[in-house]
Amino acid sequence: MSLPDYKRLDFKDILIDHDGPVVTIWINRAKQRNTINTNIIEELIQIFELVDRDDRVRVVILTAEPTAPAFCSGADISGGWDVLWEEEAEKEGPQAHRDGGGRAALAIYRCRKITIAAVNGHAAGAGITALQLPFDIRFVWAGAKLTFPFIRRGIVPEATSSYLLPRLLGHSRANSLLLTGEIVTPDSPHIQGLYHQILPTRDGVYPTAKAFANELAANTSQTSIAFAKGLLQHPGDSIEENHLLDSRAMKILAASKDGAEGVQSFKERRLPKFVGSLSRDLTDWFPWWRRLDVKHLKAKL
Amino acid sequence: MSLPDYKRLDFKDILIDHDGPVVTIWINRAKQRNTINTNIIEELIQIFELVDRDDRVRVVILTAEPTAPAFCSGADISGGWDVLWEEEAEKEGPQAHRDGGGRAALAIYRCRKITIAAVNGHAAGAGITALQLPFDIRFVWAGAKLTFPFIRRGIVPEATSSYLLPRLLGHSRANSLLLTGEIVTPDSPHIQGLYHQILPTRDGVYPTAKAFANELAANTSQTSIAFAKGLLQHPGDSIEENHLLDSRAMKILAASKDGAEGVQSFKERRLPKFVGSLSRDLTDWFPWWRRLDVKHLKAKL
Amino acid sequence: MSLPDYKRLDFKDILIDHDGPVVTIWINRAKQRNTINTNIIEELIQIFELVDRDDRVRVVILTAEPTAPAFCSGADISGGWDVLWEEEAEKEGPQAHRDGGGRAALAIYRCRKITIAAVNGHAAGAGITALQLPFDIRFVWAGAKLTFPFIRRGIVPEATSSYLLPRLLGHSRANSLLLTGEIVTPDSPHIQGLYHQILPTRDGVYPTAKAFANELAANTSQTSIAFAKGLLQHPGDSIEENHLLDSRAMKILAASKDGAEGVQSFKERRLPKFVGSLSRDLTDWFPWWRRLDVKHLKAKL
Repeated sequence: MSLPDYKRLDFKDILIDHDGPVVTIWINRAKQRNTINTNIIEELIQIFELVDRDDRVRVVILTAEPTAPAFCSGADISGGWDVLWEEEAEKEGPQAHRDGGGRAALAIYRCRKITIAAVNGHAAGAGITALQLPFDIRFVWAGAKLTFPFIRRGIVPEATSSYLLPRLLGHSRANSLLLTGEIVTPDSPHIQGLYHQILPTRDGVYPTAKAFANELAANTSQTSIAFAKGLLQHPGDSIEENHLLDSRAMKILAASKDGAEGVQSFKERRLPKFVGSLSRDLTDWFPWWRRLDVKHLKAKL
Repeated sequence: MSLPDYKRLDFKDILIDHDGPVVTIWINRAKQRNTINTNIIEELIQIFELVDRDDRVRVVILTAEPTAPAFCSGADISGGWDVLWEEEAEKEGPQAHRDGGGRAALAIYRCRKITIAAVNGHAAGAGITALQLPFDIRFVWAGAKLTFPFIRRGIVPEATSSYLLPRLLGHSRANSLLLTGEIVTPDSPHIQGLYHQILPTRDGVYPTAKAFANELAANTSQTSIAFAKGLLQHPGDSIEENHLLDSRAMKILAASKDGAEGVQSFKERRLPKFVGSLSRDLTDWFPWWRRLDVKHLKAKL
Repeated sequence: MSLPDYKRLDFKDILIDHDGPVVTIWINRAKQRNTINTNIIEELIQIFELVDRDDRVRVVILTAEPTAPAFCSGADISGGWDVLWEEEAEKEGPQAHRDGGGRAALAIYRCRKITIAAVNGHAAGAGITALQLPFDIRFVWAGAKLTFPFIRRGIVPEATSSYLLPRLLGHSRANSLLLTGEIVTPDSPHIQGLYHQILPTRDGVYPTAKAFANELAANTSQTSIAFAKGLLQHPGDSIEENHLLDSRAMKILAASKDGAEGVQSFKERRLPKFVGSLSRDLTDWFPWWRRLDVKHLKAKL
C-alpha cells in the first residue's frame, strides 16, 4: 500500500498528529462539546483502519483539547435519535441497523496496534462506550465526570459496551455503572479499575499518555503486540485450546527476527531494536479466529 | 393479568411492602436467624415472578429487620441436608434434584426489573449465594460478617455461585472466598467489589437502598432496564454478535415512546416521564436468547 | 497406587517437603535465579500429578528460598529460545510445539487439591504466568518486582496467561500488565487483585502460607475442594447449566460421609473431621467435563 501522509488527510471532525511511530487523533468538535455525529464515526473508522495497516505506526492515541467543554459528551442528539439511522439500512428494515458507536468500537478494537484513550475531560454515553472501552489502555483526568446515562434516556448501553465493560471490570462494577446511570469521577471504586493512570490535571493527561506511547513504541515488537492482542481477544474456548494457541504463537515469534533480537538485547543488557512488521511477519496463521462481517451479515439473532 | 394486592398476599416467611413502583421483601424468620427453608424458597420464587410481570413495579428490594440476628445465616440445616430434597425429585433419582437456592437465584436473576439486596446483617452460605449474588445491586452494612463456608461443611458452592461470583468479581477474588471459606467483612479486598455501597450502620442500609430505588424508579425506563439487563446477561458470543444485538435493541427503543421522551426531556433539561411497560413494549424479539427449562430438562450434563 | 515417599523422590531442580497433608515444593535453582528450564518443567508436572492422585495430600505450596535472588526470573534463555523446543516436536513441525510453561500450568491448574504460590521474591515472565497464575491462591512479598516482559522480548504472553490473567483480574488490568510489560510491585492497582495476602517481609511469606495451608487442610473436605474447583473451572455455558451441575454436585456430596460430618460438626459446634478421599468418593460423574488431550491433539486451530 502507499503510505498515507497523515497531515494531508482531509478530516473535518478529527485532527491527526503523526510523530514517528505514534499517531494522535484529536477530537475536533469543541463547539459541539465534542459530541459524536455520523461523520466523526466514519472518520474514526477510516483512521483506525489506516493506522492498523501502516507499518510505521505502533501506537495510536485518541484525545481532545484540554480546553474543550468535554472529552466527549456522547452522541449528538440535538436532532433526536434520527441522527443514528443510515438511509440505506432504513430501507432494508430495522434488523439492518448497525449502531454507529459500535461500528467505531469494532474498528478500534480490531486495530492491531496499541490503542490509548487520553481522557482529559468529562465523558458521557458513547464518549465512554465507543471512545474509551475498545481501547487497550486508558488515561484519565481525576476531575472527569463520567456517566453511562442510557437507561435515563429510554435507550440501552450501546457500542458493544454490554460486551466490553463486564469483561474489563467484572459484572458487579458494570451493573453499578450501566444499570444506574450514575455520574462518577475516576476515584469511584465503581470505575477506577478502568483506568491505567489517573492524572490530577486536564493538561497533564495527554503528555503523560504521549510519553508512555513513545516509550512503548520504541521498545516493543509490533508483531508481539498483534499476537498478544489476538490472544487476549481470541483466547480459545478452554485453557487447553489457549495452550495450543499460545504455543503456536510462541513457536512463530521465537523463530522470528524480533524473537532473536529479544533474546540478544536481553543478554547484552541493552534496549531492543525490533524490525518486524505486520505486513511481512504475521504468517498465514494470523488471524486464527473468524472475523464476522457484521455489515453484510443478516441479523437473525 | 390481574394485578396482585401485595399487602394481601399470604406469605409466611417473607413480608411484602408495596410503595408505588418499589416493592420491598422482608425476610421474616428472625427467630430462625433468617435461615432459608423450603418454604421461603417457594415464596421468593413466587414474589419475583409476580413483580417481574407487574408493570407497576420497577425496583425490588430484599432486606431483613436490622434487629434480626442476621440478614440470613444460610440454609436451615437443623434437620440435616434432608431439608434440601424434594420428595418428587427423590423418586426420579439424583439427577432430578434441583437445588432450592439455585431455583430462587434463577427467579431473581431472570426478573426484568432492577433488583437490590440491602444486606443489613451477617450473611453466610445461601444468605450470599442465593440472596445476594443474583441481584443487580448490593448495599451492605460495614460490620456484616460474610462467609461461603461450603468446603468446611462437606458440600459445594451452590445456588449458581460458581457461575455468578467469578463473573461479578473475577476468579482471583472468587477463589479467595469460595476455596477457603474465610469470614470477611465488606472492607476486605476479597469481597468489597461485590457492593455498590457500604454503610456504617445496620439501620442505615435499607433507607439508603430505598431512596436509591425511589430515584431509579422515577427516572429510568422500564423497557430500557429490561433490554439492558438482557444485553448484560446474554451479550452474544463475540463482540460482533453483541454489536448486532445492541444495534437491534437501540433501533427498537429509539423508536419507542420512552426513546422519544429520553431525547425530549434531555433537550428541555427536565426529568423524564417514562411510560413504556414490559407487557406492551418489549416486541417479539425480546427475549433474543433461549431460556432453558431447567425443571423438565434431563440433567445429562 | 503405591504412595510415594516424597523425601526420596529424585528431583534436581525442585525440593519436596511432606508435612502430613501439606506438600511444599521448593524451587531449587537459586544459582540460576530460579529460572525455568526444560527439566524443572518435567519435575513440576510429575510432582503435581503425584500429589493430585495421593489421598494423603490436601494442599500444595510452591515457594523458593527467601535468600534466593528471585522467586523465579522466568525462562532460562541463556541458550536463546532454543531451550524451549523439544526434539520430538521439532520433527513433526511447528504445530506440534507445546509450550513448556503451559504444560506445567495445565498440570497445576488440573490438580484437584488446593494449590498455593508463596511468592517470596521477584518474579518475571513464566515466573508469574506458569508459577503463579494457575494456582488457586497466591501470597506475595510486598517488595517483589513483578513483570510480564513478553512484548519487550519479541514474543507473546505464554503458559495460558492470555486465558488465565483476564479471568483472574478482568481485561482492564490484564491489558495494563500484558500489553505494556511494566514492572510493578504488589501494591499497584494493576496487580494487587491477584494476591490473597501481601506480606511485608520475604521471610514471612512461606510461614504465613504454610499456616494457612495447615488450617485449610485440617478443616476442609477433600471431595468438596475437588468439586468446588471443578465447578469454578467448568461452570457450564449458562446459569441454567450451572444450576444443573451444582445441584448434582450438592446431591452427591450431601449424601456422602463428609456431607454428614459437615452438618454434624456444625450442630455440635466443633471442628469437622473429614474422611472422604478422591480415590474413593468422586463418583463416576466426576469429571463432568471433557479433558482435552493436548499432547496428541493435532493443533488445527
